[in-house]
Amino acid sequence: MTVNQPHHDGSALHVEGTTAALGERCRLRLRVPQVWGSASRVWVRSVQDAEPRYDEAVRLDAAEGTQGAGAADGGSGVGRAGSADGWVWWEASMLQVNPVALYRFVIEVPGSDGPVYWHLNNQGLHNRDTSDYHDFRRTTAIAAPDWSRDAVLYQVFPDRFARSAAAGEHPSPEWAVPCDWDTPVQGRGPDTATQFYGGDLDGVTEKLDELQALGADIVYLTPFFAARSNHRYDASTFDEVDPLLGGDAALVRLVEAAHARGMKVMGDLTSNHTGDAHEWFKRAQADPDSVEAGYYYFNEDHTDYESWWGIKSLPKLNWASEALREAFVTGEDSVVARWLKPPFNLDGWRIDVGNMTGRLGAQDLNKEVADLIQKRILEINPDALVLGEQTSDAGPDVDGFGWQGAMTYSNFTRPIWQWLGDPKASVDFFGTPMSGPPKVAADVVLATHRDLSSAFSWPVRSATMNALNTHDTARAASVMIPGGPVVAAALSMLLPGIAVVFAGDEFGLEGWNGEASRTPMPWDEPDRVVTDLREPYTALAALRHGSPATRGGMRWLLADGDVLAFVRESAAESLLVVAVRAPATVQLAELGLAAGALGEPAFSVGSVAGTASELTLGGPGAYVWRLPGLEAPAW
Amino acid sequence: MTVNQPHHDGSALHVEGTTAALGERCRLRLRVPQVWGSASRVWVRSVQDAEPRYDEAVRLDAAEGTQGAGAADGGSGVGRAGSADGWVWWEASMLQVNPVALYRFVIEVPGSDGPVYWHLNNQGLHNRDTSDYHDFRRTTAIAAPDWSRDAVLYQVFPDRFARSAAAGEHPSPEWAVPCDWDTPVQGRGPDTATQFYGGDLDGVTEKLDELQALGADIVYLTPFFAARSNHRYDASTFDEVDPLLGGDAALVRLVEAAHARGMKVMGDLTSNHTGDAHEWFKRAQADPDSVEAGYYYFNEDHTDYESWWGIKSLPKLNWASEALREAFVTGEDSVVARWLKPPFNLDGWRIDVGNMTGRLGAQDLNKEVADLIQKRILEINPDALVLGEQTSDAGPDVDGFGWQGAMTYSNFTRPIWQWLGDPKASVDFFGTPMSGPPKVAADVVLATHRDLSSAFSWPVRSATMNALNTHDTARAASVMIPGGPVVAAALSMLLPGIAVVFAGDEFGLEGWNGEASRTPMPWDEPDRVVTDLREPYTALAALRHGSPATRGGMRWLLADGDVLAFVRESAAESLLVVAVRAPATVQLAELGLAAGALGEPAFSVGSVAGTASELTLGGPGAYVWRLPGLEAPAW
Repeated sequence: MTVNQPHHDGSALHVEGTTAALGERCRLRLRVPQVWGSASRVWVRSVQDAEPRYDEAVRLDAAEGTQGAGAADGGSGVGRAGSADGWVWWEASMLQVNPVALYRFVIEVPGSDGPVYWHLNNQGLHNRDTSDYHDFRRTTAIAAPDWSRDAVLYQVFPDRFARSAAAGEHPSPEWAVPCDWDTPVQGRGPDTATQFYGGDLDGVTEKLDELQALGADIVYLTPFFAARSNHRYDASTFDEVDPLLGGDAALVRLVEAAHARGMKVMGDLTSNHTGDAHEWFKRAQADPDSVEAGYYYFNEDHTDYESWWGIKSLPKLNWASEALREAFVTGEDSVVARWLKPPFNLDGWRIDVGNMTGRLGAQDLNKEVADLIQKRILEINPDALVLGEQTSDAGPDVDGFGWQGAMTYSNFTRPIWQWLGDPKASVDFFGTPMSGPPKVAADVVLATHRDLSSAFSWPVRSATMNALNTHDTARAASVMIPGGPVVAAALSMLLPGIAVVFAGDEFGLEGWNGEASRTPMPWDEPDRVVTDLREPYTALAALRHGSPATRGGMRWLLADGDVLAFVRESAAESLLVVAVRAPATVQLAELGLAAGALGEPAFSVGSVAGTASELTLGGPGAYVWRLPGLEAPAW
Repeated sequence: MTVNQPHHDGSALHVEGTTAALGERCRLRLRVPQVWGSASRVWVRSVQDAEPRYDEAVRLDAAEGTQGAGAADGGSGVGRAGSADGWVWWEASMLQVNPVALYRFVIEVPGSDGPVYWHLNNQGLHNRDTSDYHDFRRTTAIAAPDWSRDAVLYQVFPDRFARSAAAGEHPSPEWAVPCDWDTPVQGRGPDTATQFYGGDLDGVTEKLDELQALGADIVYLTPFFAARSNHRYDASTFDEVDPLLGGDAALVRLVEAAHARGMKVMGDLTSNHTGDAHEWFKRAQADPDSVEAGYYYFNEDHTDYESWWGIKSLPKLNWASEALREAFVTGEDSVVARWLKPPFNLDGWRIDVGNMTGRLGAQDLNKEVADLIQKRILEINPDALVLGEQTSDAGPDVDGFGWQGAMTYSNFTRPIWQWLGDPKASVDFFGTPMSGPPKVAADVVLATHRDLSSAFSWPVRSATMNALNTHDTARAASVMIPGGPVVAAALSMLLPGIAVVFAGDEFGLEGWNGEASRTPMPWDEPDRVVTDLREPYTALAALRHGSPATRGGMRWLLADGDVLAFVRESAAESLLVVAVRAPATVQLAELGLAAGALGEPAFSVGSVAGTASELTLGGPGAYVWRLPGLEAPAW
């Protein structure tokens, strides 16, 4: 039970201003439900040069007119009054001493044996001292662009998405095993990396209407550089778009068409390695004295080199090389730069294997390189987005300096699989030796989600991908209980983070592992559509784009067995989201709501019945209600 | 209840070898109590280049003779058998890919609805995925010297410890307010920093017999450089020992006398700041073009400078200055180096304000400087000890590269105060706005201790100070319930970490804050002895030095209200420690022991009665029993 607890999040309800600056103070707010108890004192405890400091908070109603400018009553009729909607508001200001400020609220409550101290950090409420690690974070990093805040990212694996008429004109390359569009995909086998279906970028352009109708606003393309595999993560050049995909001109056409619709296009860059057929690597291998030899980690006699997971076709890049930094990042026409500039105008990069980039043994240049890449990207286009792949716990690495958000599985995908997953499903569980997802109750899922999200600042969390699945995982439809994927989709769309649709999710496509999930899209083959989810996806995306609440706060209400419920809050409107994995009865009181507070849901998959004080919900199901905005004191 | 859970710690029972090397594999062991349940599979999950890998463990009894060299049965009669003492042992090996390897055990247990996965990390056992942050850590850092492993560190505040005959010969300095030995100490007031009692180093030398009798083996001196305060953290030079303390020759005499007894002597160095009377700062202030001007952070027109907490008498050092690095650390006759060399031969440094050193706003050179200092110290004396002050959560900074251990309060002092503290005590609680320690139950205290210790590697934890109090805190005798300090002393002596006696603890001296606790020692004034604890201290130190268990493993058994119990385990002997803050009855079964397992305690403060299956313990009290060693499989 998490409802009716003291609350803070990084949204505009609780944090003044959107950008942090070194040396400046920032007002922060806590709200305490009157039913929880009465705090006698509250402090913001912040860590400054690794030393804790305490700023005492004032109760806003007690301090009326004494704090700051004290705006007059706004439209909400609340003004600076601290008690509204059953909440008591507290406010303190914190000095931003370091680029990353860690902070928590310490809440004093009178007790029979002396006062009791509660610590509210980004993981939740604790009755004890806690590690600083899980504190809230406010940073001076440049946040992901505004357009990403309520975005729906649609991920395209180019070889499998769509073939334009022109695609037929390209002969299959030497390494490829040509496949018809309906050839079964090999999840594991000799042809896994070489099955070639021949999708191209004009194929993507031709489908933009469909993507837009679905509500997608970012098209994220996995690599489009020429390579010797269908996934193209083994680039043989960074200088031109694979002619098999239509070449540079096709990318220009795609980006222009997307931009004309107000959509964004992101690319995918391997900063950890190239392919062994890459022109850099070929020069490096041929000539130990070449500049490019320094781009890689060769052994002394130049007979061997470091590679990704020991796979020799993916030689690892050595970021100690200044020449590599220039060619890849800092140079005028660097790889990072070139594709963001006209005529290509990409809107950002997703960085592959972000977690390993710049790391080898005792050498750790990861942050340095990530910073460099971010700076260069934003120099060219301050409105671009920089996402880093950090498949596992992304908290330690992703602080917004470098990757602005993560493509990760630890805080959303894994816990959601463990809640909605079918434990009997024989699918790859993120490369772990477990077969299939373990089945876990909602309270444990929530604890996992909060723990693994706790090191993210609010902007990083807002820019981190909530993926049900990707080209690197099994498909939700193969993992989850029947009816589970759409529930997961609702969570993806309505929790903080970038909503993600991996092409084919909307058709319920299946796949037991990452490679098997790279299924050709069933555009013209209705019998290959497993479950048509386009309608709920469209409705969810519309809700996401249409409600200010999806840029608002985030408060968990209930996590119990088969039920997860939360509310996204803003001054203008709130959204109540209830997800169930099985039929369930939920008392409105369990959600902190008065009887009769709920009318018709704004979105539902599943049946809703019940009384004024109780919901009877079909499951698996997902239900969303629009609620009045939160009556928050004006800043 | 923590007894009867799967267990791992960094001791030799569970980790092969004492040093980690990059690129080498290391065998790690988990033991699972048979009464807990039967694991079907176990893995070591380690984080390599921020990517998780799984090494499957084998059950040692199942693998008899198939793993490694398979030593024949040793003296224990167990050999490689995995089940002994009711434990099933599992073993896997992990590759040390990075300097800091994070790892945990993942334990699969069959369940009715598919397998259940438990994660054992350094914080405890979890029924879910967890953040990597709390994983066990194995690092390639150079561990603290062997002599520190079972050391009892005795902290001396020179001005207040003892006056030799020679002390009377030194006139009081200009800044000082001369005090007689029995003048009350001002905890806060105009003379707090200037009350001058005139203790000197020969005074310390003269008391070495007493310290040795108590069981102390490290004498740690707070600063001995000349300054303009009684605490001397505002050094005016690093070039000579304060003549008021007897000068260089007195330090030589002290170290020689200590070494002759097999004792060590540590100094205290301010790497964050100097005093404003320091010769460096005077030159810096006088001449903006001087080399020394670069040692500090002056503003552009040279009228102001950065200082510790804004206190202008403590100008902050700027570690971006290469010249400072040379003068302070790397130079042949640097501050760090000089006092470790003959004729002074100090055995290590405690680094003051370690957490702020090298940090200012966006500049963070902390790790770099700490590394530099460690390297230089160990270059001169590989057997020296490097401790860093990190008053708050030391986990993020103290990984063994730089400070080998911490002088910190978060993982031991604060939780112990919250368990044994008197909530009505009006004392300073670590500079927080709370007055006095909150009262917290044992389970919460244990959760705090484990959380705040979880980021320490085993060697760092073993070298981190378990202080009841220091010159910077109130005194345990003023904080705790009557009888509490000796219980805390038992925990300090028997938990992993360096045991700490702050001079005067053995006499029960009092003090409501850090300054008030700098009480002159009651050597010749028996009526100023509040509680004579020399006997239990001596007995505890003897137990600490005499049992191999204090270098062994660490396993919590019970944390419930008024009772904390744990066992230190080694192959030769184990020590059971039960601490109670009030009279308590404990079932042997709660400790995982069979009826009749306990005879007479090897140490007790408080009364023990009861039956073969139940202990009736007086409280506050501390009780220690010697137990047979753990029958562990040979490596």
